[in-house]
Amino acid sequence: MKAVQYKDVESVMVGDVAEPTINTPDDVLVRVTRAAICGSDLHLYRGHIPGMAPGSIMGHEYTGIVAAVGERVRHVQVGDRVVGTFHVACGACQLCRLGQYHQCSHGGVLGYGLAFGDYPGSQAEMVRVPWGDVNLRKIPDGLPDEKAIFTGDILTTAYGAVRNSGLQPGETCAVIGAGPVGMMAVMAAQVMGAARVFSIDRDSRRAGAAESLGAIPVDSSRSNPVRRVMQATGGLGVDVVIEAVGGPPTLALAFQLVRGGGRIAAVGVTAEAQWAFPLMTALTRDITFRIGLANTHRDIDATLNLVAAGRIDPTTVVSHRLPLESAPEGYRLFHEQRADKVLLTVG
Amino acid sequence: MKAVQYKDVESVMVGDVAEPTINTPDDVLVRVTRAAICGSDLHLYRGHIPGMAPGSIMGHEYTGIVAAVGERVRHVQVGDRVVGTFHVACGACQLCRLGQYHQCSHGGVLGYGLAFGDYPGSQAEMVRVPWGDVNLRKIPDGLPDEKAIFTGDILTTAYGAVRNSGLQPGETCAVIGAGPVGMMAVMAAQVMGAARVFSIDRDSRRAGAAESLGAIPVDSSRSNPVRRVMQATGGLGVDVVIEAVGGPPTLALAFQLVRGGGRIAAVGVTAEAQWAFPLMTALTRDITFRIGLANTHRDIDATLNLVAAGRIDPTTVVSHRLPLESAPEGYRLFHEQRADKVLLTVG
Amino acid sequence: MKAVQYKDVESVMVGDVAEPTINTPDDVLVRVTRAAICGSDLHLYRGHIPGMAPGSIMGHEYTGIVAAVGERVRHVQVGDRVVGTFHVACGACQLCRLGQYHQCSHGGVLGYGLAFGDYPGSQAEMVRVPWGDVNLRKIPDGLPDEKAIFTGDILTTAYGAVRNSGLQPGETCAVIGAGPVGMMAVMAAQVMGAARVFSIDRDSRRAGAAESLGAIPVDSSRSNPVRRVMQATGGLGVDVVIEAVGGPPTLALAFQLVRGGGRIAAVGVTAEAQWAFPLMTALTRDITFRIGLANTHRDIDATLNLVAAGRIDPTTVVSHRLPLESAPEGYRLFHEQRADKVLLTVG
Amino acid sequence: MKAVQYKDVESVMVGDVAEPTINTPDDVLVRVTRAAICGSDLHLYRGHIPGMAPGSIMGHEYTGIVAAVGERVRHVQVGDRVVGTFHVACGACQLCRLGQYHQCSHGGVLGYGLAFGDYPGSQAEMVRVPWGDVNLRKIPDGLPDEKAIFTGDILTTAYGAVRNSGLQPGETCAVIGAGPVGMMAVMAAQVMGAARVFSIDRDSRRAGAAESLGAIPVDSSRSNPVRRVMQATGGLGVDVVIEAVGGPPTLALAFQLVRGGGRIAAVGVTAEAQWAFPLMTALTRDITFRIGLANTHRDIDATLNLVAAGRIDPTTVVSHRLPLESAPEGYRLFHEQRADKVLLTVG
Repeated sequence: MKAVQYKDVESVMVGDVAEPTINTPDDVLVRVTRAAICGSDLHLYRGHIPGMAPGSIMGHEYTGIVAAVGERVRHVQVGDRVVGTFHVACGACQLCRLGQYHQCSHGGVLGYGLAFGDYPGSQAEMVRVPWGDVNLRKIPDGLPDEKAIFTGDILTTAYGAVRNSGLQPGETCAVIGAGPVGMMAVMAAQVMGAARVFSIDRDSRRAGAAESLGAIPVDSSRSNPVRRVMQATGGLGVDVVIEAVGGPPTLALAFQLVRGGGRIAAVGVTAEAQWAFPLMTALTRDITFRIGLANTHRDIDATLNLVAAGRIDPTTVVSHRLPLESAPEGYRLFHEQRADKVLLTVG
Repeated sequence: MKAVQYKDVESVMVGDVAEPTINTPDDVLVRVTRAAICGSDLHLYRGHIPGMAPGSIMGHEYTGIVAAVGERVRHVQVGDRVVGTFHVACGACQLCRLGQYHQCSHGGVLGYGLAFGDYPGSQAEMVRVPWGDVNLRKIPDGLPDEKAIFTGDILTTAYGAVRNSGLQPGETCAVIGAGPVGMMAVMAAQVMGAARVFSIDRDSRRAGAAESLGAIPVDSSRSNPVRRVMQATGGLGVDVVIEAVGGPPTLALAFQLVRGGGRIAAVGVTAEAQWAFPLMTALTRDITFRIGLANTHRDIDATLNLVAAGRIDPTTVVSHRLPLESAPEGYRLFHEQRADKVLLTVG
Repeated sequence: MKAVQYKDVESVMVGDVAEPTINTPDDVLVRVTRAAICGSDLHLYRGHIPGMAPGSIMGHEYTGIVAAVGERVRHVQVGDRVVGTFHVACGACQLCRLGQYHQCSHGGVLGYGLAFGDYPGSQAEMVRVPWGDVNLRKIPDGLPDEKAIFTGDILTTAYGAVRNSGLQPGETCAVIGAGPVGMMAVMAAQVMGAARVFSIDRDSRRAGAAESLGAIPVDSSRSNPVRRVMQATGGLGVDVVIEAVGGPPTLALAFQLVRGGGRIAAVGVTAEAQWAFPLMTALTRDITFRIGLANTHRDIDATLNLVAAGRIDPTTVVSHRLPLESAPEGYRLFHEQRADKVLLTVG
Repeated sequence: MKAVQYKDVESVMVGDVAEPTINTPDDVLVRVTRAAICGSDLHLYRGHIPGMAPGSIMGHEYTGIVAAVGERVRHVQVGDRVVGTFHVACGACQLCRLGQYHQCSHGGVLGYGLAFGDYPGSQAEMVRVPWGDVNLRKIPDGLPDEKAIFTGDILTTAYGAVRNSGLQPGETCAVIGAGPVGMMAVMAAQVMGAARVFSIDRDSRRAGAAESLGAIPVDSSRSNPVRRVMQATGGLGVDVVIEAVGGPPTLALAFQLVRGGGRIAAVGVTAEAQWAFPLMTALTRDITFRIGLANTHRDIDATLNLVAAGRIDPTTVVSHRLPLESAPEGYRLFHEQRADKVLLTVG
């Protein structure tokens, strides 16, 4: 079968590889229909994440049709149209049983190298899904794969961050970053009842796109976002900040935007081991800070319902639709920031 | 000043009465700009509620400008544009201090007769607001009185019922009744993240109006609403039902629509002292049932934020705008079901 | 093997029956170590519940050792010491996946007759547990079976009711009925932070037993419980009522004890199909009412932790410990109200 | 009147000063009955906090009798026995109206110098309480001042931290530090339903005191607390950590003790402006971190109820009871770590 393989830094190829097989009684094989290139795939592409051997199959966002199931599988059957979670969990360890699937003792990320379980990825014609009962969801009738695919990763990541922030209906929210995850956070904040959502980005085109979703755009290349937000909130700051960029500058910005007693949820992936946390500010202002990988399994049923009902349309972030064979071009465009989100059509 | 006065069953008049004065250090006088006729005013109009003496001033939905404040008042000042809560609370008793303002030991309802505190109503050029610090909110700049007025009663009543139901984002909700409160419940359910909202009414025009708000209309005069909802939910029923009609038939319908483990919140005012509660059904299906007057004070800040931000437009339910002098006509139209919601312009 | 079999109204026997076998890949066989007679077993014993064929094995409260597992079972293995949930759920239907195990589309109650799935009961030397992965929990090391057994039914039933009531730390709670479930509710309310717990029973011995657990006893045969509670709460009533008797009189009492805006959770099993719900009182006082079978699966991990840590000692309700062979005597004593709770030692 | 006055670094005196007077209509004068020396008073005593002029009256923990009220005061009256919150809030600003009293735009701390509002303290025979309606609570009948005093500061601080952590009944908690605040956190965690509470301190006497409250003592001077906690939790870590020491070493320890997906609430006051936050660890393990001054007003009613009902006895931390005149000795003993908690008897 055809699959997108890692070759070298800034280089992927589409090669022919053996089809996967059912290896354990919990495995499910899925014939892939859509795969997407995630912002986190760029970390691999750029060589920032060790442990990706040449020839490894990439990708962790996908939809497809169940082609085969192991003998212990109960929840899906051959022919089901499904979406998979980017992170796979065993469903049986102590943390999974607490509902903390993203902290699974045996889990990993599809197509993300040795440090993440060494699972072949989903940018391929077929993918083997470990613990298929846990890591697949049936797609509701009438919901296109192209919309469902986002519930397996970036929509649910953003949604989970907003939920983790404890946003209450009627509150005000600032989302830092208007890339695909930031846009999803804008949509999630709206669906959870935010009165006003500020979308902050230094790219005026992106800020404008957020405006078309109903957010208040703040082009940080032209105006000071702290001043803008303080003016709009009577000097108070926002109840909630979602940080969707990653790294110290935007984390620091989050603490400047939030009101006393407010909450910051960070989803921007970063490489820093440590960060100069504003301890005294957080102490006197009573700030709650949470940063963490998404617990996709916790929230995917809700996001599937919301997308199926038309409350959220995640395809607004798609800039390119390409066949699987053109994945190398998709990676290049994305790497050069000429694409926002690339969907690959498979089969 | 001019005021709408109760005369007799099915009869109100606009008469000249003395302006109210500051009687206690907590009083606030408000020069009324808008008043609305509430569905519950019809109960008085029809003579269903005892204790309304001829000559009493009616009305409990209003906006206005603060004209005078008692010496203990801190939170509003002369000139502030304000909206009042239909129910007044003292803010100091044990229940108020628990945040249960609707259960205030000294409270009442403006313009609702002896049993509700014997307070003169707000369908007048000026109204005295007891405990003004507790029962008034400043209207955010830029928000028209016409939109703010609904936060003092029916919008917040509906919003509170949805909140009381524990509706979670992604869940499915049925709203029974598409009158003004039902329509507000549809909007509230959407803003709190309902994936799908069914609006059930036996009036096809009303059901259609709900559809224009994004709800799934169910015309119960033409099709069985239980069958419709079961078909649409895979035979499961909805997570949450908001009952916004009142009385045994729609309460019974609520128990038929809700899924096992689901929740029913009823806001429809009813005159029955008792009701044949389906005890065995509720026991085996684990149904939570709540019926109660709204705690407007708890939720009005959130609804003001949401209306000010344009997330909810409550004026969609307004069918008539009349000058105060035409209040008798407004009552008649509403009584004859030829009006959905009547706004009175004052001054 | 030996098993307690239903014979006729007010008659059970211990007979020899064939050992169960693994019938489906999800089955688990458990060699029983402890079984208990539940208050709800008396409904069968007294012939109030149809569908119990003579010869059927009774019982749904048990602990034991896993003796065999079907090929799809992942979470328990042979030799594990386990406690089972009284209600069995499939874990795979739509309601189970919502976490509503007590509403499972395929579930039932062990040893409770045709209407509840026709499953042989656990008052036997061996029991077949359907969907063993879902319906068994390992018992923490060091926790005796005799304490663990209660987490499979009455402790978790009571705990779930208190949790459903939304009791907050510092609130005041009244528990109606000081039978085994009522006593468990007292302990659960305390562990969830109730400041004061009133235990109301017309049996002075039972009320006294609740006092030894730290509750404020109210002997309703000697004093009016409403007056007592009102005196102790400044005329306000309690925040939360747990009704643990069943039937109209105690349900009505619950509405008299609760404060405005308060919550009632009923766990008393009753046979009435309908009940004269105090609609007007609930409307004006904003009362939340919930009655329902327990979702044991939701709360059993918490109760196991609490019992293992010594925060709750459920054995305080045990009045009799008998060998399995003496089950007929145990039923008789319980039926004649000469026993509070009977534990059967097996093997 | 007599009052404890700041003199110089490590020096306080009891002097004669003018009695306070009602300066604003919201003021209340309280004749003090008990005052306590808080750990945070030592920061002043040691000269770590600038802005304390010689002669300033110290102290912010107190109970007393209302001696006079301003004309706008409604909630307390002359003769009421009251406890005050250490932090005073106006009750009227935007943050107060959100319930964020600890973030009040006009607030401060009694007896804590210029940077905290320059309010005279409560270690005196009489104290003026600004916005008395907001910052005083009546003490329930039968509850001694000596127990009530802790609800105005350290008990409610600790309780609030546990509540902020989102601790659920049945979870496991580690409290770092067994000083007075740590001991209060142990009691609060228990009352909120923690199954197991580890109390970690390098002083074996303190760890032993926590054991007498039911905690599992971990003497960190003798054994590695991370190893101890991991052994006791199957290598998982605790659900919740309460950090009650302050400063980088114990903050770092908190991240080592908590399980993936867990929560840390820090109440230890610290002087560091910044701290090397373990960003990558928090990201991959999804840790929620909150540090902040307590919102005493939010939780004091609950803690008063719990102490009045005997569920919490905060006096277990009191090591010394001295007359007001001996305050200099009390400060010295506390400073030299020869006292745990000093209560001053006044009048």
